[in-house]
Amino acid sequence: MSENKYVYFFGGKQAEGNGSMKNLLGGKGANLHDMNLIGIPVPPGFTITTEVCNDYYKIGKDETVKIIKPAVEAAMKQVEAAVGGPLFGGAQNPLLVSVRSGARASMPGMMDTILNLGLNDEVVEIIAVKSGNPRFAWDSYRRFVQMYGDVVLGMKPESKEDHDPFEVIIEEIKEEKGVELDTELKVEDLQEMVKRFKAVVKEKTGNDFPTNPWEQLWGAITAVFDSWMNDRAIFYRKLNNIPAEWGTAVNVQAMVFGNMGLNSATGVAFTRDAATGENIFNGEYLINAQGEDVVAGIRTPQQITLEGSIRWAAQQGITEDVRKKEYPSLEETMPVVYKELFDIQNHLETHYKDMQDIEFTIQDGKLWMLQTRNAKRTGACMVRAAMEMVAEGMISEKDAILRVEPEKLDELLHPVFDKAALKKAKTVAKGLPASPGAATGQIVFFADDAEAWAAEGKKIILVRIETSPEDLRGMNVAEGILTARGGMTSHAAVVARGMGKCCVSGAGKIEIDYKTRTVKMSGNVYSEGDFISLNGSTGEVYEGKITTMSPELSGYFGELMTLSDKYSRMYVRTNADTPHDAAVARKFGAQGIGLCRTEHMFFEGEKIFAMREMILADDEAGRRKALAKLLPIQRQDFEGIFEAMDGLPVTVRLLDPPLHEFVPHEEENQKEMAKEMGISYEQVKRKVESLHEFNPMLGHRGCRLGNTYPEISEMQTRAIIEAAMNLNKKGKKAIPEIMIPLAGTKKELEMQINIVRRVAEEVFAERGEKIEYLVGTMIEIPRAALTANEFADVAEFFSFGTNDLTQMTFGYSRDDIGSFLPIYLDKNILKFDPFQVLDQEGVGQLVRMGTEKGRSVRPNLKVGICGEHGGEPSSVEFCHTVGMNYVSCSPFRVPIARLAASQAAIKEGK
Amino acid sequence: MSENKYVYFFGGKQAEGNGSMKNLLGGKGANLHDMNLIGIPVPPGFTITTEVCNDYYKIGKDETVKIIKPAVEAAMKQVEAAVGGPLFGGAQNPLLVSVRSGARASMPGMMDTILNLGLNDEVVEIIAVKSGNPRFAWDSYRRFVQMYGDVVLGMKPESKEDHDPFEVIIEEIKEEKGVELDTELKVEDLQEMVKRFKAVVKEKTGNDFPTNPWEQLWGAITAVFDSWMNDRAIFYRKLNNIPAEWGTAVNVQAMVFGNMGLNSATGVAFTRDAATGENIFNGEYLINAQGEDVVAGIRTPQQITLEGSIRWAAQQGITEDVRKKEYPSLEETMPVVYKELFDIQNHLETHYKDMQDIEFTIQDGKLWMLQTRNAKRTGACMVRAAMEMVAEGMISEKDAILRVEPEKLDELLHPVFDKAALKKAKTVAKGLPASPGAATGQIVFFADDAEAWAAEGKKIILVRIETSPEDLRGMNVAEGILTARGGMTSHAAVVARGMGKCCVSGAGKIEIDYKTRTVKMSGNVYSEGDFISLNGSTGEVYEGKITTMSPELSGYFGELMTLSDKYSRMYVRTNADTPHDAAVARKFGAQGIGLCRTEHMFFEGEKIFAMREMILADDEAGRRKALAKLLPIQRQDFEGIFEAMDGLPVTVRLLDPPLHEFVPHEEENQKEMAKEMGISYEQVKRKVESLHEFNPMLGHRGCRLGNTYPEISEMQTRAIIEAAMNLNKKGKKAIPEIMIPLAGTKKELEMQINIVRRVAEEVFAERGEKIEYLVGTMIEIPRAALTANEFADVAEFFSFGTNDLTQMTFGYSRDDIGSFLPIYLDKNILKFDPFQVLDQEGVGQLVRMGTEKGRSVRPNLKVGICGEHGGEPSSVEFCHTVGMNYVSCSPFRVPIARLAASQAAIKEGK
Repeated sequence: MSENKYVYFFGGKQAEGNGSMKNLLGGKGANLHDMNLIGIPVPPGFTITTEVCNDYYKIGKDETVKIIKPAVEAAMKQVEAAVGGPLFGGAQNPLLVSVRSGARASMPGMMDTILNLGLNDEVVEIIAVKSGNPRFAWDSYRRFVQMYGDVVLGMKPESKEDHDPFEVIIEEIKEEKGVELDTELKVEDLQEMVKRFKAVVKEKTGNDFPTNPWEQLWGAITAVFDSWMNDRAIFYRKLNNIPAEWGTAVNVQAMVFGNMGLNSATGVAFTRDAATGENIFNGEYLINAQGEDVVAGIRTPQQITLEGSIRWAAQQGITEDVRKKEYPSLEETMPVVYKELFDIQNHLETHYKDMQDIEFTIQDGKLWMLQTRNAKRTGACMVRAAMEMVAEGMISEKDAILRVEPEKLDELLHPVFDKAALKKAKTVAKGLPASPGAATGQIVFFADDAEAWAAEGKKIILVRIETSPEDLRGMNVAEGILTARGGMTSHAAVVARGMGKCCVSGAGKIEIDYKTRTVKMSGNVYSEGDFISLNGSTGEVYEGKITTMSPELSGYFGELMTLSDKYSRMYVRTNADTPHDAAVARKFGAQGIGLCRTEHMFFEGEKIFAMREMILADDEAGRRKALAKLLPIQRQDFEGIFEAMDGLPVTVRLLDPPLHEFVPHEEENQKEMAKEMGISYEQVKRKVESLHEFNPMLGHRGCRLGNTYPEISEMQTRAIIEAAMNLNKKGKKAIPEIMIPLAGTKKELEMQINIVRRVAEEVFAERGEKIEYLVGTMIEIPRAALTANEFADVAEFFSFGTNDLTQMTFGYSRDDIGSFLPIYLDKNILKFDPFQVLDQEGVGQLVRMGTEKGRSVRPNLKVGICGEHGGEPSSVEFCHTVGMNYVSCSPFRVPIARLAASQAAIKEGK
Repeated sequence: MSENKYVYFFGGKQAEGNGSMKNLLGGKGANLHDMNLIGIPVPPGFTITTEVCNDYYKIGKDETVKIIKPAVEAAMKQVEAAVGGPLFGGAQNPLLVSVRSGARASMPGMMDTILNLGLNDEVVEIIAVKSGNPRFAWDSYRRFVQMYGDVVLGMKPESKEDHDPFEVIIEEIKEEKGVELDTELKVEDLQEMVKRFKAVVKEKTGNDFPTNPWEQLWGAITAVFDSWMNDRAIFYRKLNNIPAEWGTAVNVQAMVFGNMGLNSATGVAFTRDAATGENIFNGEYLINAQGEDVVAGIRTPQQITLEGSIRWAAQQGITEDVRKKEYPSLEETMPVVYKELFDIQNHLETHYKDMQDIEFTIQDGKLWMLQTRNAKRTGACMVRAAMEMVAEGMISEKDAILRVEPEKLDELLHPVFDKAALKKAKTVAKGLPASPGAATGQIVFFADDAEAWAAEGKKIILVRIETSPEDLRGMNVAEGILTARGGMTSHAAVVARGMGKCCVSGAGKIEIDYKTRTVKMSGNVYSEGDFISLNGSTGEVYEGKITTMSPELSGYFGELMTLSDKYSRMYVRTNADTPHDAAVARKFGAQGIGLCRTEHMFFEGEKIFAMREMILADDEAGRRKALAKLLPIQRQDFEGIFEAMDGLPVTVRLLDPPLHEFVPHEEENQKEMAKEMGISYEQVKRKVESLHEFNPMLGHRGCRLGNTYPEISEMQTRAIIEAAMNLNKKGKKAIPEIMIPLAGTKKELEMQINIVRRVAEEVFAERGEKIEYLVGTMIEIPRAALTANEFADVAEFFSFGTNDLTQMTFGYSRDDIGSFLPIYLDKNILKFDPFQVLDQEGVGQLVRMGTEKGRSVRPNLKVGICGEHGGEPSSVEFCHTVGMNYVSCSPFRVPIARLAASQAAIKEGK
């Protein structure tokens, strides 16, 4: 066991610890010490360190208790001295204490608090006499027995469906007495309750309820340590990436009682509005109550401020008379204490320079602070509070930027469900939160139907086993997309995010039957036309309609974005394939397009016919004929995009997906195609079969297409260059950057670059003028990163395609990880989905290597990222440290990336 | 233009160059200089350097001629001096010359030789007079016009189907004259021939045939330079990895004439038997002939030695009387010249310390050597000659080892077609040479039929679109396998090589129809039961039966192997899944198994049912039940393999392929399976569908299976450990090494290793004893190589799975590369198929990184390779330089790998 100090005392404006000691004393403990030091009234107590917790897991319970016992006893003596009179375990004037866990990071619900520790049959009588309030004494006692029984003695049932035996007894007694509220119970009822509580403890555990206060205390302390390794805590840590080695501290404090009568109360409050960020003190309290009563929902809590109270009453439809009588504010009921509380919250916010979430108790007219911590808040609140604190001079611009969690911005950009409506909703399935937002609509299963129904003004949800480019038009008109297969970077997910459209993907348990046009979820069958709702931010699927609300972008949001850019080194581009997406992204501050996929264009309208004609062609001449039809259409597409990005660079990637994605795979559609093309069904079928690949992801795609059918690259280059020149003619400015996909050897890249340069020169010669353009490459194959020095010989820019790079570096198919990724995350084999969060350890090595090798040959090489990771904050930070010039992400991630880029630059400077 | 010496003279035992100057003078040129220096009679001449050729491509024809003209003219004067009399272009006593190309490496057929240059209508008459042999003069003239017309003036048709206009004329005249052989033509016929030749030149080229000898010479010289870039030369260079920058030299030599009458002759010879390696001088000659007559097949060439002549006659069924009269040996016809030739060939072999391939001409009783070079030879010859030369003290052991091309050993290990029978065979398709050897048999399309037919004693060829593990038993009984799809590392190819069985894979143009049980090849339809033959060494498919012959392994082969091991640092293991394969490999010198794939075992006999039962199980309990049935069978399999490898280590890889490989995909088979398993067809169908993956190569396989279904790894570990202990009980020695496949993170590897160690300890506890075993991992995912330092923390050995590593590093699916790899090789985007030859530049970086990072943590880490590359010589050499402990390859590649490993060690030492 370490020989450091085990126990830190605080009390009476003195403290052995301070606010900077969160690692050792936990968050709650450090702030308790801190509040003492700045003169805020806190019940005296002591903190057992997190190191003791770690040792506890090494040397065991008995040894730990033996070693820290002297220190705990000494600290308890200090507490007794600070409260001046009552002694813990004392016979005349007994001291009661609370025991609370407190880890370095807040872990709500890890272990419940134990209040009123030290009570037994003798002590309760003394307190009844000394307080002159037997009801208070017995109320405290029955609360203690229940809490201790649940938390320390393990009486709390594992499952929520099972009944807490204590709650059962409470209900029994209330029924026997014919009362509804706890407060209506009399002293003798509470005495009976304690009796029955102890009996049930004896029955279930085989032991008598402990009566010795010190035994109670050690039981509680070790229960806190044990709770560090309970399932809930392990799960929470995994979810929040908290290492088990951190351990938890234990805080033991002299009790103060909010349940001592009508001059006592307990409450929680926020220094600002945690929903909107408005700088307004707010919170709730209950008179004559203790601990969790405020949030337990048994009694309706009252507002702390008068203003808040009036506002609340209006919302609830309660008249001012009723409000004043039944729900008065603390400002009204205890104006002096309120004034003190108001000053303290101001003091705390100024002291911590952040919005606080505080807990307090008023014991017989005296205010005690029990906790303060930085408040959890919504994205909107986070942005507004940060920006206002800058304006107030409380924090610096850099700190404001660092304080906003980039992911939280997402909340500001997408529709959300109305909270009240959501409460009543029934969850019927769960998938991956593939694209955020909320959506409600009628089920359709086919893209064609989606278009037809949408044309009739219906709101629809497209439900598919998986989506393919053929579904694009249907996805475009849908409110949301639900798929049974595919991960966070499946086709559906990627496209939906690009569109800023809600999507739940990989809901593996739903059973879709295209034939009967039904989907089975949680045992119910839903047919085409039935309403469902999706939450793309959580992956939940609900039955029926749920009202959605569109969030408004506040001025604070714009301010934050401007401020972010001020400190960024990298800039942010967007992945956009249409003028509409490009315009949306530009509105969000994108400084160009980092990835314009040309393949999606081929699916719109009549283009698919020409594309298929090309695929069906038996020779180059046939392909050229079909490509000639595609040329003007592609050129027009590019003109639209260049126009939307007027003056900003647009990186156009040449054709990437395997050709089989452009042909239908079902007999019916193949027959239709045959008819359209004027050829036999067998011909179509044979061609489609010949395009089949076992592992299309590793097959004939990317520049492998461009090198086997150079005429495709020629056509696309011509379309790009001509479109740019046409746009410039209109007085606008196109800045094309042509990008070669999937190059794995310098030679294949070089062949494509040669085609691009040759065709560009041809166009220049035809038109008698030239424009500037760049030719570069995706780095998305491990071999490309490994030999990037060679690539940089011929490429003018690199863009890391980390989706494919992750696939090949891990050997994971994005479309097939559903069968093992959830298990891998569950077993902690993977800390995160590497398609969402860039794997810095493995894939990151290749990204760094690729960048460094590239720049070793071409020092000013422009380097960016266009994989999905370009919009994920930790990945953006990594891109910054690698030295990239920009990140590119889907339009709705642009603000997140801008903030993350700024934070990366600020962190680096620190 | 470089200012080095352009032209090097040789003649009269003097030479400006020597044998070490192959880079500058080409192989032929350097040896001509060399022969002069060692006193061998060579017609005087000069060599224009390869540097001039390179300059020619920079500065062009006119400039080149201008610059080198003085040097050529000066050298020609030296030649005139050396021959003592005749002058080039001289009116009284004209000198004729030959012009030959000569690159650094021999490039047969790049450019034809031009003989008799300097002839025109005047010169021919002078020579007729001076030689007293007008027929000789005109025969030489007509030969010259034809050769010059074909080679320099471009009269030779591009396609073999088109007629050479000169040949047409020869046939016309022979017909007019009613003769069959050229030698029967009279002087006036030859004169007429020259006249018509010149007319056709004028007609086709628009120009008169050049009469000025110098103009002829410059035409010939520049034609040699031009030929360096003709299609044939480019193709040959690509095939043999010869850089274009090497250029070709030009050799101009005074003519000597083998066609000057009955005391003249020309011939080719080998210092040893190029087929068997027997140390016996042999060759062919023709009296009164020139140049290519010997090999052209118009006249039957005669043997040089008496012994050879007698042997030849016996083979041809020719009586000794006829032989003596019509086909006497040179030893008989010109015994003095023969003696001189015999001494010279001895001299040359001793001088070059290698078997020589020589050309000579006898002019009027005087012997002239025209060329000597290291002879091309068969594998058998290569081995025998090398070993005998060591015995003769001619070369060192190391040189003998270096001299054998490892790939050539393959010829010694597999059946080959009878050459005579092959000549008559009709090629009907071409695929990839997937597994060497020759096979003849009847077509069957299904594995079941293969087994049934083979049971009847029929020899069969299994013809499939592609093979899967379901076909294993059928493959095992087949003589050979032909597939329409799949590359060199497709399932069919890998398995066939493992079995040492002939296979042609990816014959893309054949059309297989399983329904009608027919295959269409080259327009013909072949049915089940029809005979075809496969050459797995070339990829050719023939119609009908062709006799095959099994080669005998000579004692020289064993000697070479023993000698190789003496100098190797790495040792060689084998990839074997059955006791039979293991035994074969052991016979070939394998020192253990580097890869035993357990999955193949599941397909034999009844095992597949238990395997399918496991796959169909809905929960762990069901899987465990099925696995319990598999345990004893697997244990028995392992015992067999351990026994075959008694005393040598056996690396067993845990289950690797995705589960869908074990279930049938066709309705009929699914119904059968349902019946066998006693469940509904729909259940089977649904399960198989649920196992479908878009990219199975990147899906749920390898240790991902073992980590999602740990019970599989448990069963396999138990089977391995128990089998090893059982075998040891029998007094034998099993050395198991358990290998985890497809690990990409340390954590997933660690979880598997923990399972292995736990189960092993369980077995040890049950049996009350322990055995030694290792646990290690495949390094086959790029991320594994990148983070190999972490892997080495927990793995006791690494085995590079370069098949998968290549797939993921390049992003190529082995099964799908057929659509672009041939084009990539053709366009020289790839220099070689990276699945055959390890890509040292890209994949090699990961191999090196993985090895170094692994050893940085565990310095004595055992490292090997078990991908297909482990049997490819250049890859084996790479593995040596990386510092691997061993390579592992299919049984029939073991000798090749042993030799390659030895060569690598010797080369490193040099």
